[in-house]
Amino acid sequence: MTERVVLAYSGGLDTSVCIGWIAEETGAEVIAVAVDVGQGGEDLDVIRQRALDCGAVEAEVADARTEFADEYCLPALKANALYQGEYPLVSALSRPVIVKHLVAAAQKHGATTVAHGCTGKGNDQVRFEVGINSLAPGLKCIAPVRDYAMTRDKAIAFAEAKGLPIATTKKSPYSIDQNVFGRAVETGFLEDIWNAPIEDVYEYTQNPATPREADEVVITFEAGVPVAIDGRKVTVLQAIEELNKRAGAQGVGRLDMVEDRLVGIKSREIYEAPGAIALITAHQALENVTVERELARYKRQVEQRWAELVYDGLWFSPLKRALDGFVNEANQYVSGDIRMVLHGGRAVVNGRKSEQSLYDFNLATYDTGDTFDQSMSKGFIEIFGMSSKIAARRDLA
Amino acid sequence: MTERVVLAYSGGLDTSVCIGWIAEETGAEVIAVAVDVGQGGEDLDVIRQRALDCGAVEAEVADARTEFADEYCLPALKANALYQGEYPLVSALSRPVIVKHLVAAAQKHGATTVAHGCTGKGNDQVRFEVGINSLAPGLKCIAPVRDYAMTRDKAIAFAEAKGLPIATTKKSPYSIDQNVFGRAVETGFLEDIWNAPIEDVYEYTQNPATPREADEVVITFEAGVPVAIDGRKVTVLQAIEELNKRAGAQGVGRLDMVEDRLVGIKSREIYEAPGAIALITAHQALENVTVERELARYKRQVEQRWAELVYDGLWFSPLKRALDGFVNEANQYVSGDIRMVLHGGRAVVNGRKSEQSLYDFNLATYDTGDTFDQSMSKGFIEIFGMSSKIAARRDLA
Amino acid sequence: MTERVVLAYSGGLDTSVCIGWIAEETGAEVIAVAVDVGQGGEDLDVIRQRALDCGAVEAEVADARTEFADEYCLPALKANALYQGEYPLVSALSRPVIVKHLVAAAQKHGATTVAHGCTGKGNDQVRFEVGINSLAPGLKCIAPVRDYAMTRDKAIAFAEAKGLPIATTKKSPYSIDQNVFGRAVETGFLEDIWNAPIEDVYEYTQNPATPREADEVVITFEAGVPVAIDGRKVTVLQAIEELNKRAGAQGVGRLDMVEDRLVGIKSREIYEAPGAIALITAHQALENVTVERELARYKRQVEQRWAELVYDGLWFSPLKRALDGFVNEANQYVSGDIRMVLHGGRAVVNGRKSEQSLYDFNLATYDTGDTFDQSMSKGFIEIFGMSSKIAARRDLA
Amino acid sequence: MTERVVLAYSGGLDTSVCIGWIAEETGAEVIAVAVDVGQGGEDLDVIRQRALDCGAVEAEVADARTEFADEYCLPALKANALYQGEYPLVSALSRPVIVKHLVAAAQKHGATTVAHGCTGKGNDQVRFEVGINSLAPGLKCIAPVRDYAMTRDKAIAFAEAKGLPIATTKKSPYSIDQNVFGRAVETGFLEDIWNAPIEDVYEYTQNPATPREADEVVITFEAGVPVAIDGRKVTVLQAIEELNKRAGAQGVGRLDMVEDRLVGIKSREIYEAPGAIALITAHQALENVTVERELARYKRQVEQRWAELVYDGLWFSPLKRALDGFVNEANQYVSGDIRMVLHGGRAVVNGRKSEQSLYDFNLATYDTGDTFDQSMSKGFIEIFGMSSKIAARRDLA
Repeated sequence: MTERVVLAYSGGLDTSVCIGWIAEETGAEVIAVAVDVGQGGEDLDVIRQRALDCGAVEAEVADARTEFADEYCLPALKANALYQGEYPLVSALSRPVIVKHLVAAAQKHGATTVAHGCTGKGNDQVRFEVGINSLAPGLKCIAPVRDYAMTRDKAIAFAEAKGLPIATTKKSPYSIDQNVFGRAVETGFLEDIWNAPIEDVYEYTQNPATPREADEVVITFEAGVPVAIDGRKVTVLQAIEELNKRAGAQGVGRLDMVEDRLVGIKSREIYEAPGAIALITAHQALENVTVERELARYKRQVEQRWAELVYDGLWFSPLKRALDGFVNEANQYVSGDIRMVLHGGRAVVNGRKSEQSLYDFNLATYDTGDTFDQSMSKGFIEIFGMSSKIAARRDLA
Repeated sequence: MTERVVLAYSGGLDTSVCIGWIAEETGAEVIAVAVDVGQGGEDLDVIRQRALDCGAVEAEVADARTEFADEYCLPALKANALYQGEYPLVSALSRPVIVKHLVAAAQKHGATTVAHGCTGKGNDQVRFEVGINSLAPGLKCIAPVRDYAMTRDKAIAFAEAKGLPIATTKKSPYSIDQNVFGRAVETGFLEDIWNAPIEDVYEYTQNPATPREADEVVITFEAGVPVAIDGRKVTVLQAIEELNKRAGAQGVGRLDMVEDRLVGIKSREIYEAPGAIALITAHQALENVTVERELARYKRQVEQRWAELVYDGLWFSPLKRALDGFVNEANQYVSGDIRMVLHGGRAVVNGRKSEQSLYDFNLATYDTGDTFDQSMSKGFIEIFGMSSKIAARRDLA
Repeated sequence: MTERVVLAYSGGLDTSVCIGWIAEETGAEVIAVAVDVGQGGEDLDVIRQRALDCGAVEAEVADARTEFADEYCLPALKANALYQGEYPLVSALSRPVIVKHLVAAAQKHGATTVAHGCTGKGNDQVRFEVGINSLAPGLKCIAPVRDYAMTRDKAIAFAEAKGLPIATTKKSPYSIDQNVFGRAVETGFLEDIWNAPIEDVYEYTQNPATPREADEVVITFEAGVPVAIDGRKVTVLQAIEELNKRAGAQGVGRLDMVEDRLVGIKSREIYEAPGAIALITAHQALENVTVERELARYKRQVEQRWAELVYDGLWFSPLKRALDGFVNEANQYVSGDIRMVLHGGRAVVNGRKSEQSLYDFNLATYDTGDTFDQSMSKGFIEIFGMSSKIAARRDLA
Repeated sequence: MTERVVLAYSGGLDTSVCIGWIAEETGAEVIAVAVDVGQGGEDLDVIRQRALDCGAVEAEVADARTEFADEYCLPALKANALYQGEYPLVSALSRPVIVKHLVAAAQKHGATTVAHGCTGKGNDQVRFEVGINSLAPGLKCIAPVRDYAMTRDKAIAFAEAKGLPIATTKKSPYSIDQNVFGRAVETGFLEDIWNAPIEDVYEYTQNPATPREADEVVITFEAGVPVAIDGRKVTVLQAIEELNKRAGAQGVGRLDMVEDRLVGIKSREIYEAPGAIALITAHQALENVTVERELARYKRQVEQRWAELVYDGLWFSPLKRALDGFVNEANQYVSGDIRMVLHGGRAVVNGRKSEQSLYDFNLATYDTGDTFDQSMSKGFIEIFGMSSKIAARRDLA
């Protein structure tokens, strides 16, 4: 019986060529699986048909947008997950949901191998392969670009030789990965890290420098989940989509960074994530109101480790699950409204309201009604500073 | 012999009244000490004379601006210190340098006590008193507002009764603390955390929404220290001052947050710190280029703890010194140029250049010349993911 | 109506005197509440009667041993909680369960105040009062020793003057707190930290230097919970009690340390916790077999923070609950048998067996059957070390 | 010109065979380098001659014992470095010093390659190769056992066929690595983790269960460095050696653990490290007396990361240097005497004395002379517990 390979299929040139390339390299039948994580672009049926036209024995498409939003983007939001304090893990979040669909397809179709289109120097190969082997230890992984030296030029030649129904225009200068949570761009001229990005790089966001009217939005959370925008109920997917539009229109969410890849090199990355950045900013502001100080301080560390783990492709790891145990507990009371102005590239919180608020007007106010007993402070200061002062007596005095 | 009290003197109504108030409460002679940390306002000599006119037996003024920039703001910059990820510790940084001058004056004048104008529910009382007793274990601390119930109304009445040479206009709605590293504002109407700040609150920054031309700046660092702006050599103080002007003119560095005070309550705070935010942003971007990944990941935690410690008034603590040991080592190679656009409230890095760069074009590029050996990745992925995959075999598969 | 005070009553001289002392100081009626957390000693009914005889208007006793073991000691075991890496939090764990009973009694009897016998320089006053006010914000807390200057000498005089039915023998040289999880001893001659403890100090443990036969024990855990000893089913309470006896008979679990108190001073403490130390040692060894590496590494930090929090009296804090979320998730697979030799003061694990084991003989063995693919290592090493090597090229080469 | 390979040479069968094996596989000349890190055994000159007799074109031996103790063991002691809380990094510490000598020899002799005898599934291959390439980016690394399938059986056959001057007795059941800081043993029957170790496994330590007289020792530290034992000045090397003997004679320092290897698998390891464990125990106890609480709490995390890094072969990494910056600062005042009883497998501290002590008898004592102002506690408790109590009002009350 012929071996079967499940291929993570995007509909683009590279993975279209992969279908035939893998067949030639391995003699296996190729099953193409395309997963919609909100990347937009062509209709899934068009993509499905193209896979078949390119030689796939089967082609499956899955609308995973809601699943992606609820089970991958939402935990990231609860963890305020920003790799290096900036990057909301756009691609890193989409890999595990795609992996789930690839593995399910492999099991359904009796495939022994999963193939993906990643190169051998990025993070995504790790995310795919560690993910696949976590869910299905027996599956083999191949990456034609990396393992069979399928360069772009050879791919174009192959497509032309075989008459594949796919455009083989000259390579776009941009290497792009996008989904509903954001968009990542790499491109040659930005590999010189002194060069600034140009407007042409962006798609999810307008130029923040263009004068326009500000947009004010109120986001309502329940236990860390965005449940309404301006009073209208939304799903997590809708919240991201609406804020992609509104924050994107104001130029919010552009990132330009030198990033530490898992494979040990630094790379220049441009991201756009208007919805993600707006939501995380609002969520953090609501946490400031509803989360107790020591929990908040500790959570910052947990958030960092969460982001590193997911960036590093360890979504299916035991540590990820245990950190989620912490994060979910910490989000229990993160409920309320955040008012935010979107304008000129900024998402600025300027109002908070919560029935779970730990902000106590009567303790905080300097006006009449102050209930804070200031006579307690003297003793607090004396003992709070004690261990440090005893050391200072030795070290400094 | 009459006891002597050194008073942290600002020249304003409250501390001017404190001079006589303390004398009446304690029978002590009061020595006023004013420390210039870049708060602007009146001339130091005017302030000095007013202290004497209000009854101080001695009055000293110190220009601590350079000391403050070099020994307090700079370590904060190296640590990218942002309390709760946002607040660059403006007031928290100034307290220890003021403390140093107060203690020196107390020792010079044989005072037994140091007095300050803080209330009993804020952070600054802790910073003053723990600092003072760290440097001089024998000194007593008093805070007339907290300890002798010196309310604003009583202060005004006292000033009028005694004919003190200080304006007793109705209380400004704003409670302000400012220095060269930034400005903090509290005010009654913002104690309702649903209310948005108004333009009137701000002084260091222009309205970011006002259309204007962008300003591009190149900041040069050596071992974490800003040493030049646009190619002109600067001291740390000059760097902060110039960026206060230029970033402030673009509306950069406004913060509106609900903050966790050391005394256990949450409070609403408005900050402006254009220079601090611009410098920290640039410094972080240069670290991304020059600091190795594992060091960078760990440093994020150290930075958070550094900021918490300093916020909590533990500047003179042993942990602070040990964290500085780490931070200084980590800044050793943080040298190079950062190009940044200041505009519309944003400070956006878009170019980096460094002779200490760890960004390796030949490893990062996808073009000809790529030296990354992709055949190594397969083994890396296999073993990097091993422990997680073995667990997944048990937990998920 | 007369005010009522609930008093944490131990049956000893100090709290017996407190009954009348509080009544005199406050005019309130005193309700004595004694909670059995396995401290041994007198019968609860005897204690109850003594409280009444000393003037309590009501006296309640509660057997909280099972509750203490299941809800306080067990979470500590799951967290391998050792303050400063050594102390298993004996007293710190008992305070919150006592607090629960005090608060319940206060609510039942309409008391406005809770009183405890702690001094003003220890940790326990914090644990009691923060705990009480967490569960019942309105209750007042008093500590006669601290607040009404009830010294030992005055207490003896009071007892004799009032003819209280309690021995007023000269003060024991030892200040002791004990419960089923261990025993804490402070005593004057050990306040000189160069002095060694003497045998007389210990009660839960035999001299480890005495020659005797070793005792081998097999402890079975399910999801982190000790469920059987030598194949016999046990409750958590029984597990602690049996190991107190068996490990105590072998001199296991003695600690002699200089400890950092919450109130900022260092103190010398002697502890005995044979059962706690044996259980934690076994639990850690089973975790080494069943918990994945990255989770294990991170859990060590969580454990430290958990121990600090509970030591610091923050049992009822939000951070404690969130850390428990992590710890419980991490214990999910901690099931299996640990064989341990108890002898000469040591509890030494020498065998582990688990159906949830992540130890894979076929990957670990150097014999025939080795399934580890060593050819993968080259690539792993190359990429794992990449970021560090790129830095070394700059810094060291 | 013939290529040259520097071989890490131990004098044993495997590396003796490697000399010829590498020559045959690569055509290169082999230079043997043996580094004495206190592993004992044969005289270095004998080893040197054997290398030449086995075909090495050059053979070098280096006595690196003092260097190893001062520059590798001492930093580990200052960091109380215990991987998984137990293992004092015996082998992990020796690899970087060996690497230094290998690289120096390679540079001296113009070698292009360094070879070592490690397998492909352990940690040491990583430590060697990442270390070598950190110090000398251009050097190639080979491991004949891993890369040229040089199994034990083939090695014996090779030695016999070539008549190498080395015993080819049947393989010892033990795989051993040892140096002055300790000894590591792996062996087949312990790969079943339910099996207990037998006495035969140990060499550095006597059976702790054997009755014998206790040994009392006083260790003096200056700034974290052990400088005297029982009043006699010692070097770090002498301190380790003397305590190896004295603590070893009492059975101190045996470890039996399931360990998380860097390559992702768990393995069973037996260690003996009497001197290391005694020194670390004493150092920790002195830190408890001389290090301020918040520094001590943070240092525990730093210690863990330090141990993980060094275990993982990242000795030459930037993070290691920055952590050392912290650790050295933290050790500045760790000076004084620790008295310790070595007996029955235990190293028990029972006395501490330090001019840098932060233990303050007058604050700690419950006797006359107590200077702790207990009236301060009330205020401390109120404010220390504030944030948690405000949250409890919402969550629990």
